[in-house]
Amino acid sequence: MERTCGNGTLRLADAGKKVTLIGWVQRRRNFGALVFIDLRDRSGLVQVVFDETLSDSIKDVRSEYILQVTGTVVERKEANPKMETGEIEVHAEAVKIINSAATPPIMISDDTDALEDTRLKYRYLDLRRPSLQKILMTRHKVCMITRKTLDSMGFVEVETPILARSTPEGARDYLVPSRLYNGKFWALPQSPQIYKQLLMIGGMEKYFQIARCFRDEDLRADRQPTFTQIDVEMSFVDENDVFAVVEKLMQAIFMEIRGYKVEDHFVRMTWDECMKRYGSDKPDLRYGYEIQNIGEIFADTDFTVFRTVLDSNGEVDAVKFDQAASRYSRKKLDELQEFIKHNFRAKALAWLKMEKGELSGSIVKAISDAEKQALIEKLAITDDDLVLIVADKPHVAETALGALRIRLAHELDRLPKEETYKFLWVTDFPMFEWDEEEQRWQAAHHPFTAPRVNDINELFTDPEHVMSRAYDLVLNGYEQLSGSIRIYDQNMQEKVFESIGMTMEQAQQKFGFFLEAFKYGTPPHGGFAIGLERLIMVLCGTDNIRDVVAFPTNNSAVDLMSDSPNVVDQAQLDILGLSINKKD
Amino acid sequence: MERTCGNGTLRLADAGKKVTLIGWVQRRRNFGALVFIDLRDRSGLVQVVFDETLSDSIKDVRSEYILQVTGTVVERKEANPKMETGEIEVHAEAVKIINSAATPPIMISDDTDALEDTRLKYRYLDLRRPSLQKILMTRHKVCMITRKTLDSMGFVEVETPILARSTPEGARDYLVPSRLYNGKFWALPQSPQIYKQLLMIGGMEKYFQIARCFRDEDLRADRQPTFTQIDVEMSFVDENDVFAVVEKLMQAIFMEIRGYKVEDHFVRMTWDECMKRYGSDKPDLRYGYEIQNIGEIFADTDFTVFRTVLDSNGEVDAVKFDQAASRYSRKKLDELQEFIKHNFRAKALAWLKMEKGELSGSIVKAISDAEKQALIEKLAITDDDLVLIVADKPHVAETALGALRIRLAHELDRLPKEETYKFLWVTDFPMFEWDEEEQRWQAAHHPFTAPRVNDINELFTDPEHVMSRAYDLVLNGYEQLSGSIRIYDQNMQEKVFESIGMTMEQAQQKFGFFLEAFKYGTPPHGGFAIGLERLIMVLCGTDNIRDVVAFPTNNSAVDLMSDSPNVVDQAQLDILGLSINKKD
Repeated sequence: MERTCGNGTLRLADAGKKVTLIGWVQRRRNFGALVFIDLRDRSGLVQVVFDETLSDSIKDVRSEYILQVTGTVVERKEANPKMETGEIEVHAEAVKIINSAATPPIMISDDTDALEDTRLKYRYLDLRRPSLQKILMTRHKVCMITRKTLDSMGFVEVETPILARSTPEGARDYLVPSRLYNGKFWALPQSPQIYKQLLMIGGMEKYFQIARCFRDEDLRADRQPTFTQIDVEMSFVDENDVFAVVEKLMQAIFMEIRGYKVEDHFVRMTWDECMKRYGSDKPDLRYGYEIQNIGEIFADTDFTVFRTVLDSNGEVDAVKFDQAASRYSRKKLDELQEFIKHNFRAKALAWLKMEKGELSGSIVKAISDAEKQALIEKLAITDDDLVLIVADKPHVAETALGALRIRLAHELDRLPKEETYKFLWVTDFPMFEWDEEEQRWQAAHHPFTAPRVNDINELFTDPEHVMSRAYDLVLNGYEQLSGSIRIYDQNMQEKVFESIGMTMEQAQQKFGFFLEAFKYGTPPHGGFAIGLERLIMVLCGTDNIRDVVAFPTNNSAVDLMSDSPNVVDQAQLDILGLSINKKD
Repeated sequence: MERTCGNGTLRLADAGKKVTLIGWVQRRRNFGALVFIDLRDRSGLVQVVFDETLSDSIKDVRSEYILQVTGTVVERKEANPKMETGEIEVHAEAVKIINSAATPPIMISDDTDALEDTRLKYRYLDLRRPSLQKILMTRHKVCMITRKTLDSMGFVEVETPILARSTPEGARDYLVPSRLYNGKFWALPQSPQIYKQLLMIGGMEKYFQIARCFRDEDLRADRQPTFTQIDVEMSFVDENDVFAVVEKLMQAIFMEIRGYKVEDHFVRMTWDECMKRYGSDKPDLRYGYEIQNIGEIFADTDFTVFRTVLDSNGEVDAVKFDQAASRYSRKKLDELQEFIKHNFRAKALAWLKMEKGELSGSIVKAISDAEKQALIEKLAITDDDLVLIVADKPHVAETALGALRIRLAHELDRLPKEETYKFLWVTDFPMFEWDEEEQRWQAAHHPFTAPRVNDINELFTDPEHVMSRAYDLVLNGYEQLSGSIRIYDQNMQEKVFESIGMTMEQAQQKFGFFLEAFKYGTPPHGGFAIGLERLIMVLCGTDNIRDVVAFPTNNSAVDLMSDSPNVVDQAQLDILGLSINKKD
């Protein structure tokens, strides 16, 4: 079909040109004998003017009709600064109706007020919105940049199976019944983890894949049953090699998509340091407000609250917020205390304010002048500063203050005004976490992660303090990437399974073929996965995961457009040899 | 880990260089005090020589151990022309054993004699074979070229859902039980067909995806339960626009991968012409041997066999093979007759030979001298020519001779000796095919394919002769691509459903949301899908589909490596509310 250019590409320089356009009618306005139509295609909108000679041809034309228009580009008398093509319009000389349209059930516009569920039901109409189209194009661009960058570094993209074996470790698998083998099932992969490690054993050396993953997890607003990750694995590497690949990739993506130069090398911090300084394993480094351990000041305190905490191996921690004392009333401070009591089981929040040279606050009477002076010096407290203090078990004190740090930075509007991306490598995560329900240690990352070399001897004697060679990449307070250096020794792998209470028999049953593979010359290897949806959300500035997926499910994991999942014919169940047990 | 270059990259020009290499031991040979080890990595093999100073360090080293070696590149006294690095070797000065290896259960070499099922069980070892690694790298390159080429033409890659709605039209769906909605199921998509059409309705204009597809079909040697297709859809196009995209893509792929210049524009032929000239809808154009209708010559024949066939609307067709008469004995010709009787239900094969100026053969006594003379002239029969003739129903005569054409071209070794790629567009396929079992017309392509404009009125009156706007791209006798211009009008879509015996109610139940989508301004659109595995097979010159898939299933649709599909825990079935009916 003839078409000379995209509607949204026309500019003043095109004035005088004859063009043929195709597009959807965004809106129609009649002004006496003239009809104005905004015609939309993937490239944008342009205003087309029809005079009375064409009025008959377009008398039925309404929103979302598709037109092919030939006409001349003309400078507008009055430019519309809200439209990218606002300096010109097209005076139609011929028009053809390509297709008609019933009245759409939702308004196709970025300021639509339709409910999200309605928009999801008519997703094919919602996708006509310029903002959604732009996000999908950005997603495509990010994938193109990723592939180009990794390819240039010698990585080979390999497709791993979608019909895989169920490995009931971690999240729940989606199962696929086999028709040929009654009673047997495939599982959709939660990630290509085992396959990418097998590719390393297979000598591929550098693998990547933009991979579809599947986890049948419980509903949460920001989750989709399926998601996509940039999945990478490399042989003969340590953390430095892996980090260099990621840094180069992020530099390319943020430069090409945002025009933003990220650092050549990202800051690194151990998990332990993160917790101590920021009370979080994914701290937002766009602002300060670091946690300071002020226990030393109260080493010999008479204040019984601090005394008791310190004597039972607890911590007294503080964060200072400048220019904040006057912003936090007693009522607001009470709210902060409720917040940490409720979310972190902290016992209490203490606070101090410096106002007009005078220290006031909840504990001002309980602590000595010397302690006050030491505090003022250590925290460099000046006028209008607010100090929040939590004395509690170390983990509680740190995480509570970490959460207050984030809350106050936002309430005080202390985030940088200009676009800022602060990357952070968090390393040396705990190897295990205690599973209260099952009363056993679980792999904190996954059971293929290597322990830190110096910690290997403590695998069984002191699992709580064994750190792993796992790492996360954190961006502005959100985890963007997770990965690790893997175990490459069969004995070590068996030891780790044992340390999480898996018998050799269970390990063999679940991962037997994988353990077997380690025997035949496994290279040292490591890798990572980047959550693609979250990365696109950051790059496009949206908080809604459904904005970055072409055909998402709603919050209840239902595809409202195709109404799936749905019932199937009895015949389909019969050939699978399945029957459904009605649940109550 | 230190590593200065790939093992397979070293050449004579590197002689004198100090290098550090990493790799797997391909083989070890002891010659007195010297040990020769071929060290393999992804880039290839190099010979490393260890003298007595290192003999202790490598005394345990066997096949598939991983070594890190530092040494000097030295010119070999006698070059090994079979190795790409055969002009040099590396004299080791230091060695480190990175990992040991048990004796592998299969020989890791391109001339391995292990059974395919054993190689599939140890796929991670089989993948170390250079030929398999090369194929996976070619597959990656083809995907890179495809994405680059399509992106440069304005196509946007969009991921469509893997958890989709079951559409029991066409092949069998893989089902995925929903845990949250007891008794409901997702289906894995047989192709992104509906989603890509919805993306056109959504205004995406140019879509592509290298897409995973799933069909639970019956076993066949060259099938995998899952496969990948290069999936494309475009709005506001006709066949010419679509073909131009494909031709550009194929040019790029064949040039970059094979260094082969394919034609700027591929030959086009209607399905009808293909059948008449080649007896196949996917003719191999690398050789001639066209079918000729010789019915006219026998318009008034006395030969009752031809007479009867012609009187009952049959055809008398012939193919001439030059330099073939002396190669086909009576016995061989009988075999050819059995071949077409058995495979095409042809009644008989007639044949004529021209030898030393004399015509002989099965029908030489039954036909008149005038008929012989006319035959000699029409087919330009000369010495040593063999003419095969089938008189039968048109479809039978054509397909039987089409099959003989292929068989004799191979038996006579008439395929071009140099690498040759002959592309052909086949167009105007029949819209419907008769389903004997269900006694109704079925969509030959899929029910979203547009009928040829001139044939629309015959949809119900003469479905057999309605041709569609479907097209295939054929390469050297194999279908590489299938596509069509789609229906974009709701009424037409409903008519086509009706013509294949689907009631409006059934259509609504199966495709309701899709039919609804057509209401709101659907652009004219069309597209195609290229089977990626088949394309890679052609480019890599393998007949085995499992060679082009990293982790394939065997001929029985079983993944022997992970032993899946497999049984799952009862608990997993319980949370899905499913039970298994034992089949006998």
